[in-house]
Amino acid sequence: MREHGGNLDLAQQRFGGRAEDWIDLSTGINRLPYPVSEVSARAWSALPSRAEIEALHQAAGHAYRTGAPIVALGGAQAAIQLLPQLVPPGRARIFAPTYNEYAGVLSAAGWEVQEVGELGALPGADLAIVVNPNNPDGRRSAPQDLLALLPRVGRLVIDESFADAVPQLSLAPQANQAGLLVLRSFGKFYGLAGLRLGFAIGHAADIGRLAAMSGPWPVSGAAIEIGCRALRDEAWAEAASARLARDCARLDEMASSQGWRLIGGTPLFRLYQTRDALAAQEKLARGQIWPRVFAQQPTWLRLGLPGGEAEWTRLAEGLAR
Amino acid sequence: MREHGGNLDLAQQRFGGRAEDWIDLSTGINRLPYPVSEVSARAWSALPSRAEIEALHQAAGHAYRTGAPIVALGGAQAAIQLLPQLVPPGRARIFAPTYNEYAGVLSAAGWEVQEVGELGALPGADLAIVVNPNNPDGRRSAPQDLLALLPRVGRLVIDESFADAVPQLSLAPQANQAGLLVLRSFGKFYGLAGLRLGFAIGHAADIGRLAAMSGPWPVSGAAIEIGCRALRDEAWAEAASARLARDCARLDEMASSQGWRLIGGTPLFRLYQTRDALAAQEKLARGQIWPRVFAQQPTWLRLGLPGGEAEWTRLAEGLAR
Repeated sequence: MREHGGNLDLAQQRFGGRAEDWIDLSTGINRLPYPVSEVSARAWSALPSRAEIEALHQAAGHAYRTGAPIVALGGAQAAIQLLPQLVPPGRARIFAPTYNEYAGVLSAAGWEVQEVGELGALPGADLAIVVNPNNPDGRRSAPQDLLALLPRVGRLVIDESFADAVPQLSLAPQANQAGLLVLRSFGKFYGLAGLRLGFAIGHAADIGRLAAMSGPWPVSGAAIEIGCRALRDEAWAEAASARLARDCARLDEMASSQGWRLIGGTPLFRLYQTRDALAAQEKLARGQIWPRVFAQQPTWLRLGLPGGEAEWTRLAEGLAR
Repeated sequence: MREHGGNLDLAQQRFGGRAEDWIDLSTGINRLPYPVSEVSARAWSALPSRAEIEALHQAAGHAYRTGAPIVALGGAQAAIQLLPQLVPPGRARIFAPTYNEYAGVLSAAGWEVQEVGELGALPGADLAIVVNPNNPDGRRSAPQDLLALLPRVGRLVIDESFADAVPQLSLAPQANQAGLLVLRSFGKFYGLAGLRLGFAIGHAADIGRLAAMSGPWPVSGAAIEIGCRALRDEAWAEAASARLARDCARLDEMASSQGWRLIGGTPLFRLYQTRDALAAQEKLARGQIWPRVFAQQPTWLRLGLPGGEAEWTRLAEGLAR
């Protein structure tokens, strides 16, 4: 198992409590989720029909402002798992540091993986990976700079798992080009990571192959039903984006008063430079708040946004200890 | 798209009505599902933890009476999709006729696929597939006959998607052997196919590779929560098995009065020889009841079991037209 946020198991082992007692800020999952409300009996019982899956693709195209071919998958992670079957092994370059599953999955499949710190070092790769905006440091790449890479790499994967609230960064509208593949996560912005829903958007040939590899029923009936509802709800998305922007400013201010320096972030998480991230983690964990730390970067602390006033209060108390 | 049961889209296109108006008997999905009741907020929002996935594996081991290594996947279908990555391409033999996804997925991945009508024709294959009990004809293979094949094939996959109510047929308890892989479907017997949950059970090396291929969060939080509850509920499983046995006898009697001959079946569906299956399908479809027909077998009609008295009444009326 690679190290991930959301590892509350570890928090509970070390500091006790039930999962539901903790405020898990170790992920970039929105803590004020889209309301699930009713799930129909049919969504639980029946195999999803082609028409239902097609309606989900339409809703995703609407939300992501694209007419490009789309396939629903069990999270952006499911698309990452399929990459080694989509492209024959070769040299991959990953714009790093970033989400560690890319290097892990590709290395395990026999790829030569190189992590690079500049977009300019990606050309020449058989497969280039850019997470935009990036996790964990929030680094942003301009869409035109990414498109300029396209003729210079075998395949360009843009992971837009954190792009919902910064749609101007998205290449989804231009994804219908050979060699370009855009990945979207549903669960983070909509706060429903347990649903396991994400999308790959790209050229028809790639999307057709991903669809064939993932089979006739790649996502659950609940994912289809809730996904269709949420992806069509523009008012909710606008309100969530506005609230997250306000909350980022509020969290940055609290961090600043701790002497932490903002390295970067997205509307769903913030990355701070601290004197000692493990000490900060331990202080917060005593109040059952779980931040993300990074083994390779002992000063980095990543925090998701608290989900309501009670959580903000607990965070303020945790920081004041 | 290969032809499957559950294709209500087609029924609606040809005969009208909303999906929820139809009695879908074209699948082997139990129409009296395990009660879903509450799903926790955490199951929707959080990434499943290792502890939660492990609890699901334990519950599956309990229900399937095995201590062998297990991995949860998005349905038995997800395991089928992974087979070409688990075993290098070669010669596959499939005990046929059976579920058409095996031949389809393996052929697409470059396998030489041969369909055989006898267990005795399987030895020599790099990969042998047996669905037990078989879909659609209910043919049963004795566990000792299957185990005898094990040293004579490269890998033996036993698909037990319809074995819940006939546990004496299952090889799950003996699945911890190199070369043997048992697949289980959760959604059919528990009537929750929309949940997308199934399991592969086998030798540690294979299960470890399937787990790596399916990634850290292969199933949804709802699948884990409901799956754990259902797989531990022995009283429900016993009552469902007993009810299905009674219902099979009742359906066979109704079919017999139509002059249909029982070819075979499992506790979740029955296969009948009719004079003209398309004509029988059309007659039932006028009452918004959807049976399964088979392009290659114009006399075969497969029926799932109706889900309650109202559905039995509609079926009797449909047959009386």
